[in-house]
Amino acid sequence: MDILVVNPNTTAGMTAKIGAAAAAVAAPGTRIIAVNPETGPASIEGWVDGALAVPGLLQEIARGEARGVAGHVIACFDDTGLDAARSLAAAPVVGIGEAGFHVASLLAGRFSVVTTLARSIPVIEANLLRYGLAGRCARVRASEIPVLELERPGSDAEARISAEIAAALAEDRAEAIVLGCAGMADLAARLSARHGVPVIDGVAAAVTLVEGLARLGLRTAKTGGYAAPRPKPYAGAVFAPT
Amino acid sequence: MDILVVNPNTTAGMTAKIGAAAAAVAAPGTRIIAVNPETGPASIEGWVDGALAVPGLLQEIARGEARGVAGHVIACFDDTGLDAARSLAAAPVVGIGEAGFHVASLLAGRFSVVTTLARSIPVIEANLLRYGLAGRCARVRASEIPVLELERPGSDAEARISAEIAAALAEDRAEAIVLGCAGMADLAARLSARHGVPVIDGVAAAVTLVEGLARLGLRTAKTGGYAAPRPKPYAGAVFAPT
Amino acid sequence: MDILVVNPNTTAGMTAKIGAAAAAVAAPGTRIIAVNPETGPASIEGWVDGALAVPGLLQEIARGEARGVAGHVIACFDDTGLDAARSLAAAPVVGIGEAGFHVASLLAGRFSVVTTLARSIPVIEANLLRYGLAGRCARVRASEIPVLELERPGSDAEARISAEIAAALAEDRAEAIVLGCAGMADLAARLSARHGVPVIDGVAAAVTLVEGLARLGLRTAKTGGYAAPRPKPYAGAVFAPT
Amino acid sequence: MDILVVNPNTTAGMTAKIGAAAAAVAAPGTRIIAVNPETGPASIEGWVDGALAVPGLLQEIARGEARGVAGHVIACFDDTGLDAARSLAAAPVVGIGEAGFHVASLLAGRFSVVTTLARSIPVIEANLLRYGLAGRCARVRASEIPVLELERPGSDAEARISAEIAAALAEDRAEAIVLGCAGMADLAARLSARHGVPVIDGVAAAVTLVEGLARLGLRTAKTGGYAAPRPKPYAGAVFAPT
Amino acid sequence: MDILVVNPNTTAGMTAKIGAAAAAVAAPGTRIIAVNPETGPASIEGWVDGALAVPGLLQEIARGEARGVAGHVIACFDDTGLDAARSLAAAPVVGIGEAGFHVASLLAGRFSVVTTLARSIPVIEANLLRYGLAGRCARVRASEIPVLELERPGSDAEARISAEIAAALAEDRAEAIVLGCAGMADLAARLSARHGVPVIDGVAAAVTLVEGLARLGLRTAKTGGYAAPRPKPYAGAVFAPT
Amino acid sequence: MDILVVNPNTTAGMTAKIGAAAAAVAAPGTRIIAVNPETGPASIEGWVDGALAVPGLLQEIARGEARGVAGHVIACFDDTGLDAARSLAAAPVVGIGEAGFHVASLLAGRFSVVTTLARSIPVIEANLLRYGLAGRCARVRASEIPVLELERPGSDAEARISAEIAAALAEDRAEAIVLGCAGMADLAARLSARHGVPVIDGVAAAVTLVEGLARLGLRTAKTGGYAAPRPKPYAGAVFAPT
Repeated sequence: MDILVVNPNTTAGMTAKIGAAAAAVAAPGTRIIAVNPETGPASIEGWVDGALAVPGLLQEIARGEARGVAGHVIACFDDTGLDAARSLAAAPVVGIGEAGFHVASLLAGRFSVVTTLARSIPVIEANLLRYGLAGRCARVRASEIPVLELERPGSDAEARISAEIAAALAEDRAEAIVLGCAGMADLAARLSARHGVPVIDGVAAAVTLVEGLARLGLRTAKTGGYAAPRPKPYAGAVFAPT
Repeated sequence: MDILVVNPNTTAGMTAKIGAAAAAVAAPGTRIIAVNPETGPASIEGWVDGALAVPGLLQEIARGEARGVAGHVIACFDDTGLDAARSLAAAPVVGIGEAGFHVASLLAGRFSVVTTLARSIPVIEANLLRYGLAGRCARVRASEIPVLELERPGSDAEARISAEIAAALAEDRAEAIVLGCAGMADLAARLSARHGVPVIDGVAAAVTLVEGLARLGLRTAKTGGYAAPRPKPYAGAVFAPT
Repeated sequence: MDILVVNPNTTAGMTAKIGAAAAAVAAPGTRIIAVNPETGPASIEGWVDGALAVPGLLQEIARGEARGVAGHVIACFDDTGLDAARSLAAAPVVGIGEAGFHVASLLAGRFSVVTTLARSIPVIEANLLRYGLAGRCARVRASEIPVLELERPGSDAEARISAEIAAALAEDRAEAIVLGCAGMADLAARLSARHGVPVIDGVAAAVTLVEGLARLGLRTAKTGGYAAPRPKPYAGAVFAPT
Repeated sequence: MDILVVNPNTTAGMTAKIGAAAAAVAAPGTRIIAVNPETGPASIEGWVDGALAVPGLLQEIARGEARGVAGHVIACFDDTGLDAARSLAAAPVVGIGEAGFHVASLLAGRFSVVTTLARSIPVIEANLLRYGLAGRCARVRASEIPVLELERPGSDAEARISAEIAAALAEDRAEAIVLGCAGMADLAARLSARHGVPVIDGVAAAVTLVEGLARLGLRTAKTGGYAAPRPKPYAGAVFAPT
Repeated sequence: MDILVVNPNTTAGMTAKIGAAAAAVAAPGTRIIAVNPETGPASIEGWVDGALAVPGLLQEIARGEARGVAGHVIACFDDTGLDAARSLAAAPVVGIGEAGFHVASLLAGRFSVVTTLARSIPVIEANLLRYGLAGRCARVRASEIPVLELERPGSDAEARISAEIAAALAEDRAEAIVLGCAGMADLAARLSARHGVPVIDGVAAAVTLVEGLARLGLRTAKTGGYAAPRPKPYAGAVFAPT
Repeated sequence: MDILVVNPNTTAGMTAKIGAAAAAVAAPGTRIIAVNPETGPASIEGWVDGALAVPGLLQEIARGEARGVAGHVIACFDDTGLDAARSLAAAPVVGIGEAGFHVASLLAGRFSVVTTLARSIPVIEANLLRYGLAGRCARVRASEIPVLELERPGSDAEARISAEIAAALAEDRAEAIVLGCAGMADLAARLSARHGVPVIDGVAAAVTLVEGLARLGLRTAKTGGYAAPRPKPYAGAVFAPT
């Protein structure tokens, strides 16, 4: 099966890294198609970046649907444009943030999130509240590492994330950690070994969840809030659904 | 003072109607500047339309900031792009959905919402949960009137909305009604008189709230989730914040 | 229009100060009528004081209704007697506590409250829960300044409140501050400038909100919990509604 | 031990009936002292009546404390003035509403309340939310019987309450019923037998709970919200705490 | 990999049916080991049956751990003994109830559950509350079909479940359905086709989730509530962990 | 009346101590029958111990019913097997955890729990959420004293519990303390005197509550989740309900 993994920002190097992380966990027979939009911000750090990434993201989702992919992954921890993507797709769509939260809930009673910048905390908290999983999350912590700094060789990102994990275990009564950025996908195994708790990478979690949904033949609901858009003019938009 | 009222869809006739409703309630000395984006859907009915309206909406917010408006109103009941708009603006920004909910909470213990299509119910419910006011809302009801049908002379929209209000009073124990679409702004007073309960139009509520915030010299918080976007490339976007 | 501002305690000096703060923000054409009850406690610090202030407060609300005021403000941060006042009034009634919370919710994702004594924290938390806005409030903090100490020239009240604001910004991830006592009305602008975040005074917020409701012709709901009292004997009461 | 049972309204006949119901369930050695305030409404139906009953109620609580009662019961289902009474008392204070909710929670997973007038529903719902037990209550139902009609021989009150109970069992998935007025104390056993579910009278529940607290030597907390009032002037109040 | 699927009741025929359903969805290379305890109730209908099934269930989990299975599924929709099983296991453990809820949350904004007997509704509702997903579930509906009736050829179970699904779509605004019993595993595809919405079988969902967790190398958290039991005597127990 | 007090672990010395604590608070005429199961763990520390204690516990409940006790107490702070016990009993059943929470809610606005080991915190938090009283509990604190260490003469348990109480008062804004283990029953009065706040022992609270329910003639609901088990085979179980 083909799984579309959309990195919603426009940094191709990050798309490649996410694609590799996805491919590394994909089941035999799954082909990962990693893409990013042609338009939009180079990284998603806060509400404005997220909003401006969505039209290009939706275009990629529509292209994926057209080529018949079995499922879609939205590879930003903010689950950017998730509801709109579901409205557009018949195949299942999973965001890496929700994937991390759901998987953590199956392994531990209580988890903390370690993300990039403090300005992303309210975005993540809003998602947790919406999904119902806020009560399972002890705390969303910011490492204050900008997204693209995670891509820079020689950065001290891993050490700073590791320090936040240590703080989460000492102060939050967290039993598992969810890494709060697609750019942290390569760190999960090493940090889990170091700290002795499950450390969950959302990219791996989302690829695995969407593969599973697809294998079960499950599709996105189409009768309520995720009904397909009604036909209408979309003047001058980067993308129009019809 | 100047108040920017952005109708986030691209239907100019609806912008004019909303502008007139806003001007009708504005205080002496307030100038209403009613605009709509150059790009995006002709009406906002569900998650996809909402997402595709945001870049154009943000452009209008940025233009308003540049010309020094005292405040912004987002005139779609889904509060489309509200968080992103706040991140972009120093002046206060009020959505007509939240305005309706907050004002209803000051007048009644419990209210119901009457909106257009059922597909908008989850959008509105997500907002109510986020704002904290879900417990004050007895029920979000759909009249199944498409947004632009509200603009069509001779439609039976008012009768159908009135029937939903009657149902809300009989079944929901609602003490007040919030009209769930900017296109219903002209109906509030008549429906309130007919049903003997407060019927709140979000456009009027939002204009009044934002005028008040501006008069008090209050500005949007800039130190957390609403911090200004960080400088970065926004490839090919309809709008870039910097 | 006439707006009645009731200071629910019996300290005339505080009534004058609140009245001045209200007049300073009132729109042109609004007349502020600042009163306090003839009976009741000299300050409201906790549940007992609040309860004993209500009959006199309701008498003032009834007098205001009789003289046809356009709206009422209850100028104690505990929103003393708010539900009963709404049951008595046809004009809108706004408490300064709820006004502060609603306004903060329009400017920031998350706010902290700085009030007077710790014994008032449970009163304020109960209100936040009731209004639905507890999830928006990071923390209610006590400065341990008695209410009337705020009136004493030469007190160090401002310094202590400022220190609590600094703590709220450092520890609570608060993006805005709500001042938790009518007697702090004169400090908001200065503290906002010093700390670089919105600092909201409930008196100003409530006057502005109730002016807005009145201008929109909105009235308190009368069909549910806020229905007018049923006629009956009120033996020897400070005030009887009929 | 002496238990003070305060009927917060001024209808002596109802006080006598409540006193008899309390005495009927009191343990051997308990003396029930049933009183009502000298001032206030003849019945409590809604927010205004409740507020105007409190000063007289607090005076009775203070008198009870002065004579050294072992505990206090507030015999209105709205738990009128409960927080203020606790601030005034060192002995435990139990409201008949909360008593009914707590007892029902020990017997059943889910209960409904049958009260008098619809205007009392928001008062009761606010209490349930405050106490944390809203999730245990399926629905608060009004029988639309005025409080004093319960005292009138020949009224059809019992039949109407019984019909509401039947509806609660059929529609609410209620497993137990809480009777929502002190004036219904004599009906509980008969209605329980008729409907085959626990039917709880708050007066009996509260007397039993407060006796138990007293026997265990437990007293009201005095270090937070229930700290004793600070000394201050209470101009012309029906009652002053000091 | 080996996945242990424990049917917690002692009805071997149902174990076989569940095992077949699990094998039908397992990935190539997964071996399903379907077992049931040697002791306990023939079906799980309510709190007592659930409690009495747990010791035998834990014994099976311990045996599975000893033989090195990659993951465990608890195949009762009540998620019987889930927390205890997690404390016992290092491999991941997934209940079919939680699996159904999490999967439904990835496909739809809002789902209803159709289970067997009404007495199971409170068990399922308690789980939904605990997991955080109560807000995503519109309603838990009982078809009033006993568990083992699902195994009886010629029963009208499917028709009754189908009727409940129709009711859920018409009355609950449900966008997806979760089947609330392991014995309904064979009905999901047909009911989904008939009603045009996702219909989720928990057995398939849980097998797929636990395979995914195992493939990602994720293990149950061991540092908090799911820490291994402390060594101690377990007098005469069906099963002792050490 | 006879009250059955079941210590759900198999440590007879602890049963004797609990029985003595229960008898010390029982009303004249109440006979305390303190028992423990014949099978199960020596102490309950976490999910597995709790689950393995339940069959033996249910057998004791059934024996108590057979001999006609007026009520049952489950004397483990985790309220082990409470729902199943209620399904089995017609007499009222009260757990010492819930008893502590309900009683604390009648005395204080906000309480903290001091329990034994950290692994019990999630069990207690799950109960608080289920009962609705999580919002009343400031924090569940672990003293890290194993259950049976409380029985050892010369242990420093009291000093460590006292230190946690001091921390709760300083850091949690707790107004009352609930002791989180049946083995702490003898410490409550002394710790209350030392710290000047109500300190509640669950054994005393539960005995008093269940006596009260019994005296009022109230019985466990039998029409919903607590309906008696349906007849069926229970192969080889420690206990079978029929």
